[in-house]
Amino acid sequence: MNEAATEATTMRTDAPDHRREAWATLQAVRDSGPLVHSVTNLVVTNLTANVLLALGASPAMVENIEEAGELAAAAGALVINLGSMSAARTEAMHAAALAADRAGTPWVLDPVAVGALSYRTGVARELLAHRPTAIRGNASEIASLAGGDGGGKGVDSTLDSGAVLDAARRLARDTGAVVAVTGRIDRVTDGDRTLAVENGHVLQTRVTGMGCSATAVIAACLAVSGPARLAATAYALALFGFSAERAARGAEGPASFQAGLIDSLYGLTEAQVLAGVRIR
Amino acid sequence: MNEAATEATTMRTDAPDHRREAWATLQAVRDSGPLVHSVTNLVVTNLTANVLLALGASPAMVENIEEAGELAAAAGALVINLGSMSAARTEAMHAAALAADRAGTPWVLDPVAVGALSYRTGVARELLAHRPTAIRGNASEIASLAGGDGGGKGVDSTLDSGAVLDAARRLARDTGAVVAVTGRIDRVTDGDRTLAVENGHVLQTRVTGMGCSATAVIAACLAVSGPARLAATAYALALFGFSAERAARGAEGPASFQAGLIDSLYGLTEAQVLAGVRIR
Amino acid sequence: MNEAATEATTMRTDAPDHRREAWATLQAVRDSGPLVHSVTNLVVTNLTANVLLALGASPAMVENIEEAGELAAAAGALVINLGSMSAARTEAMHAAALAADRAGTPWVLDPVAVGALSYRTGVARELLAHRPTAIRGNASEIASLAGGDGGGKGVDSTLDSGAVLDAARRLARDTGAVVAVTGRIDRVTDGDRTLAVENGHVLQTRVTGMGCSATAVIAACLAVSGPARLAATAYALALFGFSAERAARGAEGPASFQAGLIDSLYGLTEAQVLAGVRIR
Repeated sequence: MNEAATEATTMRTDAPDHRREAWATLQAVRDSGPLVHSVTNLVVTNLTANVLLALGASPAMVENIEEAGELAAAAGALVINLGSMSAARTEAMHAAALAADRAGTPWVLDPVAVGALSYRTGVARELLAHRPTAIRGNASEIASLAGGDGGGKGVDSTLDSGAVLDAARRLARDTGAVVAVTGRIDRVTDGDRTLAVENGHVLQTRVTGMGCSATAVIAACLAVSGPARLAATAYALALFGFSAERAARGAEGPASFQAGLIDSLYGLTEAQVLAGVRIR
Repeated sequence: MNEAATEATTMRTDAPDHRREAWATLQAVRDSGPLVHSVTNLVVTNLTANVLLALGASPAMVENIEEAGELAAAAGALVINLGSMSAARTEAMHAAALAADRAGTPWVLDPVAVGALSYRTGVARELLAHRPTAIRGNASEIASLAGGDGGGKGVDSTLDSGAVLDAARRLARDTGAVVAVTGRIDRVTDGDRTLAVENGHVLQTRVTGMGCSATAVIAACLAVSGPARLAATAYALALFGFSAERAARGAEGPASFQAGLIDSLYGLTEAQVLAGVRIR
Repeated sequence: MNEAATEATTMRTDAPDHRREAWATLQAVRDSGPLVHSVTNLVVTNLTANVLLALGASPAMVENIEEAGELAAAAGALVINLGSMSAARTEAMHAAALAADRAGTPWVLDPVAVGALSYRTGVARELLAHRPTAIRGNASEIASLAGGDGGGKGVDSTLDSGAVLDAARRLARDTGAVVAVTGRIDRVTDGDRTLAVENGHVLQTRVTGMGCSATAVIAACLAVSGPARLAATAYALALFGFSAERAARGAEGPASFQAGLIDSLYGLTEAQVLAGVRIR
């Protein structure tokens, strides 16, 4: 593994820092165990919590109006995921995002199925007023949130991440958020600079909650990253995607792949990260 | 595997078409990836989504009144599962079922614990007005929904599927739905014809959401089946039950069995289906 | 395995009954399959149901006001877990706990994140009026519920179980409940006698819902234990913790550990339990 790492570092002298800093970000999460508050959907609560625990963070899922703001103000980072909606959840999402914005807590918006369903498309646009630190979605969701035609089918995208890069940049400039469009290649932009993350595996499309989990990993990395938010978002996606690649090697299908991804994320070593992260 | 398939086909010349058509149904799901909208319970959302993804379908879980009807009208099939109830969910279930009925979207009712709990027993009967395409339950649930004494204990049945076949036939004739009673042997009837599916494994009784998952697989198969709804329902149960049999071989307990079932469903080959499906 | 069992029994002649009775308790759960009603949080519903099924119990998750009291009165035991709150859930929790108290159904309170969040801290104190049979929490939660400063961070404790033993004893005497403080060593007290359970594994801190699952196992054991509630609570924790130890041996990370725990719990043999349970 050390040999491979050395070779890879040698061959890509143009961007050696990304790998070292991705590893440093992972170490910071493991060392400080940031509390990540998720207001997320009913399908992925368990998976999201387990991904955060495997990463070294401390997850808390609280989505009621009585408590969402209190926890968001105390947390290291917040996730607002639109996968499950209701009038009560919308109210709690606003309370949590408002509290995060006021407290300076970084927060990430995951606009699940925005564009495909009218109600949540409206809610997502309103939530932008609370100034998300980052937004992660597939190409259809990001295009829709930026104001275009996303062409989504339910929660799955019919577009490629590269095709909506202009919309992502515009959304980033309009909101001040880092915008991540995930797909075969993930594109991360602050409206000015753009990074491409080439980690990941096609089996991620056959397991529910992979995008939602990536969003939670972004939140954990933002909790420890300080001002380098563009880079931290890309590192989160690379660490998650690389864990997926490693899990796919031993998988017999989507279920063993999902378990392997969590086990892999938990055990990531410096040598593996230095050899595996692909950001340009 | 090819030898076994040939032998099995030879030995059961009375019904060779079921196996070929079960395979054709699976191929159609994989090829078209139908959007399956589930209003389902809080225990099984993640499992149901992953079963549908492993099968090749595209799952979406939406259960709020603001969006349930909009999605049901656009989906390839709909599941209404009564495992988690509330006044708000009941309202969303009605909206989704009504939209499905109007749009001609096939929809499947899963009357979890009907008979054991009064409120949902009433809701289940009211939902029949929206003309479900299929109904899947255990023997207690089907007997209760048909108007008899189901003798259920919580969500588990104390009856055998064969013992309630008359009630199932009556329910099918009264509602126009295909009715599936799952158990050691699954019975599927349209009130006139009846098919028996002999696939499955006893470990399915030690994992939560196996019935709910089977219901979701039925919905996916109905999305691609056209008018052959009796057969499509039986094929869904056979494909799911056969995947369970294959998973049981390598399982060390219920958790590895569940993961193996999803992996098996994802990887099913033509030779396996032709050798393994048992319908009469 | 028999050799190890014999040796272990020989070496600890001071408390041989705990192991034999822990095994008898597990057998009673497997033989009678008690219906365990859980009003639990959205993160752990699936895991809790699967742990109960692996143990041999029959889980039912019902949390709406229309049905919670009806099911609690019919169940063998009830779990009230505060991990997900809302005004509607609080109402259902009260209805279920009241019905359990009136029907003589044993019920277990799991005060998730009590102390860290104000609303649920108030709800937890009000629920004590319905006389829980047992209360299980981490050190922070138990200290907070007993009226002290719990020092919790989100849902994770920053205290050791031994440090809050006085608070646990006071809470037990004030409420009449058996109080279990789980951690590296679990302490179980009725206010007078105290047992220490030394089973468990550190990987339990990297999987969500381990405490919630332990609470559900306590409920199942209380459903079959009669008046020996202190011992039954300790046996539940020992059986669960020992299954965790066995799972950790073959685990490659938190996900394979979780699956292994369920498989291990399902397959526990007499020889394993007699050799593995450590209670003093």
